[in-house]
Amino acid sequence: MKARITVTLKSGVLDPQGKAIEGALSGLGFSGAHHVRQGKIIEMKLDETDETAARAKVEEMCKKLLANPVMENYAIELSA
Amino acid sequence: MKARITVTLKSGVLDPQGKAIEGALSGLGFSGAHHVRQGKIIEMKLDETDETAARAKVEEMCKKLLANPVMENYAIELSA
Repeated sequence: MKARITVTLKSGVLDPQGKAIEGALSGLGFSGAHHVRQGKIIEMKLDETDETAARAKVEEMCKKLLANPVMENYAIELSA
Repeated sequence: MKARITVTLKSGVLDPQGKAIEGALSGLGFSGAHHVRQGKIIEMKLDETDETAARAKVEEMCKKLLANPVMENYAIELSA
């Protein structure tokens, strides 16, 4: 099955990349865009076919490698 | 309204970050994860309240700054 993991910074954490994008957008003349935040998305294919087992495995991957639970939130979406 | 833009590499494009994650996962003992691809996600708040206008604006932002249409695909999700 396929997994899509979205990793975003927790709301209190400063996001310099987001700020840079916001600055660049206003420099290009796009006004009215605020609170720009950047995160990452990781997609993968898993051999696992059972959804519960797959979710547990991806959760473990997030905690150990893909996200920093101190600063980041993650969301897992699974599809067949 | 809020916009969430997902930028992913087109399928033919080599993804060294994804490959690195795949290698690190297997190094940590997670087997059965393949085709790992990394993308980015950008969230922002827009002053625009009309959905059609907001979508057009974000589309323009993607073309001019947020994504490289030669190598990347982007998807736009809007919510109130």
